[in-house]
Amino acid sequence: MPIQLVTTVAGLKAESDRLLTAKQGVSQGLVPTMGALHEGHATLARTAVEQNDVVVASIFVNPLQFGDAVDLDRYPRTLDADLALLEEQGVDLAFAPSVEEVYPGGEPLVRITSGRLGDKWEGASRPGHFDGALTVVAKLLHYGMPAAGLPAGSAGSGGGSLPAYRAYFGQKDAQQLALVRRMVADLNFPVEIVGVPTVRAEDGLALSSRNRFLSEAERDAALVLSRALRLLEERAKAHEPLGIDSALAMVESQPLVELDYFDVVDPGTLEPLAENCRETPFRGEGLALIAAKVGPVRLIDNVPLSS
Amino acid sequence: MPIQLVTTVAGLKAESDRLLTAKQGVSQGLVPTMGALHEGHATLARTAVEQNDVVVASIFVNPLQFGDAVDLDRYPRTLDADLALLEEQGVDLAFAPSVEEVYPGGEPLVRITSGRLGDKWEGASRPGHFDGALTVVAKLLHYGMPAAGLPAGSAGSGGGSLPAYRAYFGQKDAQQLALVRRMVADLNFPVEIVGVPTVRAEDGLALSSRNRFLSEAERDAALVLSRALRLLEERAKAHEPLGIDSALAMVESQPLVELDYFDVVDPGTLEPLAENCRETPFRGEGLALIAAKVGPVRLIDNVPLSS
Repeated sequence: MPIQLVTTVAGLKAESDRLLTAKQGVSQGLVPTMGALHEGHATLARTAVEQNDVVVASIFVNPLQFGDAVDLDRYPRTLDADLALLEEQGVDLAFAPSVEEVYPGGEPLVRITSGRLGDKWEGASRPGHFDGALTVVAKLLHYGMPAAGLPAGSAGSGGGSLPAYRAYFGQKDAQQLALVRRMVADLNFPVEIVGVPTVRAEDGLALSSRNRFLSEAERDAALVLSRALRLLEERAKAHEPLGIDSALAMVESQPLVELDYFDVVDPGTLEPLAENCRETPFRGEGLALIAAKVGPVRLIDNVPLSS
Repeated sequence: MPIQLVTTVAGLKAESDRLLTAKQGVSQGLVPTMGALHEGHATLARTAVEQNDVVVASIFVNPLQFGDAVDLDRYPRTLDADLALLEEQGVDLAFAPSVEEVYPGGEPLVRITSGRLGDKWEGASRPGHFDGALTVVAKLLHYGMPAAGLPAGSAGSGGGSLPAYRAYFGQKDAQQLALVRRMVADLNFPVEIVGVPTVRAEDGLALSSRNRFLSEAERDAALVLSRALRLLEERAKAHEPLGIDSALAMVESQPLVELDYFDVVDPGTLEPLAENCRETPFRGEGLALIAAKVGPVRLIDNVPLSS
């Protein structure tokens, strides 16, 4: 089926309603993106298509989460290629609204605030970023809710029941994923959040829309991030001490890489698991986070640790 | 039908689903309250019952919106009387959760922030109040969403469609109502907000759960608030200048009344309509807001102005 492009909230509701009804669908998936799609997004979309009868992908570069107008302006916009990629994965609807459609009265007065979970790590170098991101995610979660009930008889009770509703986020943006999960739990959004593993290039670099701004030398240098993470991952699997100091030294030896943070945290609270990182064998669940500036580009990456 | 009491979110979803299905209902209404119900709440509930097939009233004293633990402790709790009043209006379900049910992990990390619309008027003397109130309203709006679809054929398209969803708030709490409307618009909650006119005692005093704390003399004194508002209402209707200064003098002449604010504002933004209040005839739409301490009790009241 060719993908359908809608640009208004009313159009999105009408078309997803029509599709759910036509397919007698029992589930709807939402894949929020900022466009400039790559294989990481394709994996998100494919996962959503596998798990849901109707899938909507949104493409919206949200001004509210950019502190820096230059960064906002130069964020890549590649709508035609994005639509082709989504169609290839079997996405039904692309929702690409204008800024005016999402913020009709200008910037919203009432917003989501991410609290202390949004102030650390990425939030420390991008003040307000997660408040802006969560505010638009809250809106998108409401836009993308199934707009039609199920046919009678499809629920156990004999009446209709609501379609399942799931939204898909990449594990690559670990703090965003943790915050979205926390928002959905704290504010009881009726949606299941699905985290999808990071997709990497063959050389290990995590895919990102910003990678295109790296020179060849910078890209080579950037590989130290995923290498350092993989080292921790392997040590955790082997029940060894993580030895984060040696991994850190490896990153710091790379002159083109300006490290911002590198730590092992609790996957839910993102608080550092200090005692787990050094001399004793790693036990339990953790998340190794890293962020660095490489040339003109800020890169982030992470791996889940499990032992 | 006797009212049903549920105390868990799962119970609320299951019972409202069962009722919607049994009644083949096409609409669900939510009436959020903090209990200590009076005729004002009865009017909210009655309006909801008139307009919806299934009606849920929530009773929850939200710690997050009380700055003062003493005020929270002494907020009246009258569950049996509340249930009787709701049943009399025809409410189907009372949802009276514990604090632990609403905030299972303690206070929420991710919250709603009310911005500058929440900092003024009531917000100025109750810092954080509206952030706490909107946070619980966001949760309640999600809890109270219809949990069942409509039978096939009830929508024009031949499939099922979602039941209408409405939530009811008193105009008495004008700033809360404006903020809830703004939150629903800014974050696109799929619900219609219905504002219900203030109910007054025969002497004009706006009904409030806090009125019970007034002595007889204080109650007499408190009548100056509604009298001053009525004066503005009549002048607006008569296309006269509002003459807020003379109304203000009336309030200030009452020694038991310690005025906090008294102004005429835009009903949406709550920004003062200064030029409309004094020498020129009032034109358009406005809202006269008043707040005062009378004895131990902070009272608020308002009237819509229209000319």
